[in-house]
Amino acid sequence: MNKLPKVSEDFPGWYQAVVREAGLAENGPARGSQIIKPFGWSIWESIWRELDDRFKATGHENMMFPLLMPTKLFEAEAQHVEGFAPEVAVVTHGGGEELEEPLAIRPTSEALIWDAYSRWIQSYRDLPLLYNQWCNVLRWEKRSRLFLRTSEFWWQEGHTAHASRQEAWEETLRMLEVYREVIEDVCAIPVYRGRKSPSERFAGADETTTLEGMMRDTKALQCCTSHFLGQNFSKAYNVQYLNPDGEQEYAWGTSWGLSTRSVGAVIMTHGDDKGLRLPYQVAPTQVVIVPIYRSDDERSTVMERADNVRNALVKDGIRVKIDDRDQFRPGYKFAEWELKGIPIRIELGPRDVGNDELIVADRVTSEKSAVSTSVAVSGMADVLKSSWQALYDDATRFRDSNTYDFSTFEEIAEGIESKGGFWRGIWCGDETCETKVTEATKATIRTVPLDKEDPHGSCIVCGKAGEETAIWGRAY
Amino acid sequence: MNKLPKVSEDFPGWYQAVVREAGLAENGPARGSQIIKPFGWSIWESIWRELDDRFKATGHENMMFPLLMPTKLFEAEAQHVEGFAPEVAVVTHGGGEELEEPLAIRPTSEALIWDAYSRWIQSYRDLPLLYNQWCNVLRWEKRSRLFLRTSEFWWQEGHTAHASRQEAWEETLRMLEVYREVIEDVCAIPVYRGRKSPSERFAGADETTTLEGMMRDTKALQCCTSHFLGQNFSKAYNVQYLNPDGEQEYAWGTSWGLSTRSVGAVIMTHGDDKGLRLPYQVAPTQVVIVPIYRSDDERSTVMERADNVRNALVKDGIRVKIDDRDQFRPGYKFAEWELKGIPIRIELGPRDVGNDELIVADRVTSEKSAVSTSVAVSGMADVLKSSWQALYDDATRFRDSNTYDFSTFEEIAEGIESKGGFWRGIWCGDETCETKVTEATKATIRTVPLDKEDPHGSCIVCGKAGEETAIWGRAY
Repeated sequence: MNKLPKVSEDFPGWYQAVVREAGLAENGPARGSQIIKPFGWSIWESIWRELDDRFKATGHENMMFPLLMPTKLFEAEAQHVEGFAPEVAVVTHGGGEELEEPLAIRPTSEALIWDAYSRWIQSYRDLPLLYNQWCNVLRWEKRSRLFLRTSEFWWQEGHTAHASRQEAWEETLRMLEVYREVIEDVCAIPVYRGRKSPSERFAGADETTTLEGMMRDTKALQCCTSHFLGQNFSKAYNVQYLNPDGEQEYAWGTSWGLSTRSVGAVIMTHGDDKGLRLPYQVAPTQVVIVPIYRSDDERSTVMERADNVRNALVKDGIRVKIDDRDQFRPGYKFAEWELKGIPIRIELGPRDVGNDELIVADRVTSEKSAVSTSVAVSGMADVLKSSWQALYDDATRFRDSNTYDFSTFEEIAEGIESKGGFWRGIWCGDETCETKVTEATKATIRTVPLDKEDPHGSCIVCGKAGEETAIWGRAY
Repeated sequence: MNKLPKVSEDFPGWYQAVVREAGLAENGPARGSQIIKPFGWSIWESIWRELDDRFKATGHENMMFPLLMPTKLFEAEAQHVEGFAPEVAVVTHGGGEELEEPLAIRPTSEALIWDAYSRWIQSYRDLPLLYNQWCNVLRWEKRSRLFLRTSEFWWQEGHTAHASRQEAWEETLRMLEVYREVIEDVCAIPVYRGRKSPSERFAGADETTTLEGMMRDTKALQCCTSHFLGQNFSKAYNVQYLNPDGEQEYAWGTSWGLSTRSVGAVIMTHGDDKGLRLPYQVAPTQVVIVPIYRSDDERSTVMERADNVRNALVKDGIRVKIDDRDQFRPGYKFAEWELKGIPIRIELGPRDVGNDELIVADRVTSEKSAVSTSVAVSGMADVLKSSWQALYDDATRFRDSNTYDFSTFEEIAEGIESKGGFWRGIWCGDETCETKVTEATKATIRTVPLDKEDPHGSCIVCGKAGEETAIWGRAY
């Protein structure tokens, strides 16, 4: 293991090193591609499972659309193609021949899916359609960054069709809440929840909602988006249904996605100078047992106890690993599991077996104490929950102490440069004012409140009456 | 719903109709692509879960390699590229520009993965690597058939590296046994298990093992393959490790895959003139409750009971649906759920509520009987198992009664043409004899025994001493 750069001194270097040293991912041979290694993929699998259970509980079903589509099909919704065309990869040859018509690799699947919905939806009785798929998409990138920005990434994309504006908007918010549960209550990432400004909307949406988290360098990361598509795609792909009165109407749509980028968010929200710190729900291993011994006799005593403890914890549904590698010393193992962010480490030597105790060390709080074996085992589920709480509290404190209210243009211009963080101020809703701040600060509006409000003040740029309180920040 | 062609009269037409009418899948807009609809995808998700649990129980971890690779990388293993190059799709443009180097869409990932293994494997302590990925691959097809042959398909591909020939061969067989459990014990498809003849081996393997099932038209379908790669890929990609004696050795490899084709196998092994018949483990809905009522009063009585029954079954982990659509009559609903192959249908009218009974109808046996509510609920898990057993027995009977032993060339040539089915006969192991039979019959060797045997007889083509008993058949 190589030493990591410090979080406070070289965050990009720290990120690159921790992704490599913890065995999360590496660059693939094609430019912009990534290999997600088992340890990294396992984190994504846990997020996947947490989301998928909630999608199903809210009435959604999974399906699978193709990877490739005729480029023509992609071009029906004008804003959508304008937004995505520059990022599309194109297949021109297959089976040893040039294709008659080039095929686009999906950058997202609205085009494919709304084209099918035009066949699947005839009557109001066919609605709502509540579908989702877990798949890979491709958006061309020249400068890639593992998990955060790669040409190919994995995600889920939900695509729903409804009989009314009201129902589609409720769906948009319902899925944003599902995301909030997984990002906050599972991944322990506190987020600001809201809409995007029109300039940051998904290409083809009437409204984009988002969750914004703060990383350890105080920059923002968009954790997911849930879009209200209005009737844009139903009109572009002619998705009409017969309402109960026998009239043809266009369906209302939503789409929503959360990607492997979320693994990057977990790394960058919780990591410290020793490496990762993982919330137990997504940790590939939740408890690691490091047996300590010198002789073969000691080894067999300690390993027997370690096996018993492992079996008891596994019975409680806890993911446990015994690190019985003989070629490494305990200190090396401690550092490696700290690097990998495993929530709880149990140290177990012959004296501990004699005392019927375990040494329990918490990765988040760095607390370490001797606990009787039976109490350690029966209390492990609670210990994992406390570790999660400590992680969430720490991230919330960090986020809150780096969020500032401001009331003048100079304040944000100077403040973002010197302190980073999130800046909350009144905005008139006009793109000119937004652009002026972005050009001066490289910060963008991360989110505005879901419901327009009357902030009783004036725009920090133009001084006109405020429409909403925007949160600004530099972002990934 | 449209009427299905009869299985015995027009099997291809029946297949196409049942896939469409049951809402399993449809063609995508690009040639050779497919849209797997929620009902079809749910079957695949169940197979996925059954396999994934077993992969993890046998020590494997999931990871994810990229979709795209430089065509150069693909070309290191000579046989492999020769086998797959004609099927590769190539990306030549990305981000609005022509790429400096064209990228191949993976047809399978040995090249990408063994290239990485050359970095991941240094010492015998790094072995074995037991990894798998669930992903899409693309093999160009001009004539596609939903689930069975499409350009893009979904599968899992396991890729393992070992320190010895023995260990790699054991892994090849271990994964074949995992497949057998899922194909036979879950999907209720009886299979012949064995090796492929050299001409049917995976391009780059020393040995390919397989499970072969018989479809309702008596044709064979290869359900999966598990390959022993020898040192072919470790030599092509230079994957060497230091053994305990300090010497460099090449690693030994396996790869193994099972795809969405298995959904086609489930359809074609069990279907009958009414539609699908699904084993309960992969049925999206295991029990459907059809409430029967005329008045609003009856409706509320019946629906209350239906809800109670549903809740009781859900508590037992059974997937239940109440079909409360008012626009369809019960008879229409019965036919639709029969078409969709749901194992058990419960009919429930006001008189049944009065008698505290349920009418339980079995899709496989067509038996229908009145059962007291509490017995029906508490016995449902067993009823599902009996339904599975009836399916498996029926498929086994069908397969066995269409498998013939033969001893002359004329027998198979005439027999395959008139009766179809599987033909078991002695083979000398020589490709000339194999080709001669294939040219005369369009049948291929589906499998030979795992261990070479002495069949005490002579090759049915050339009359030389027999090396093994081959099973021949026409195949999908």
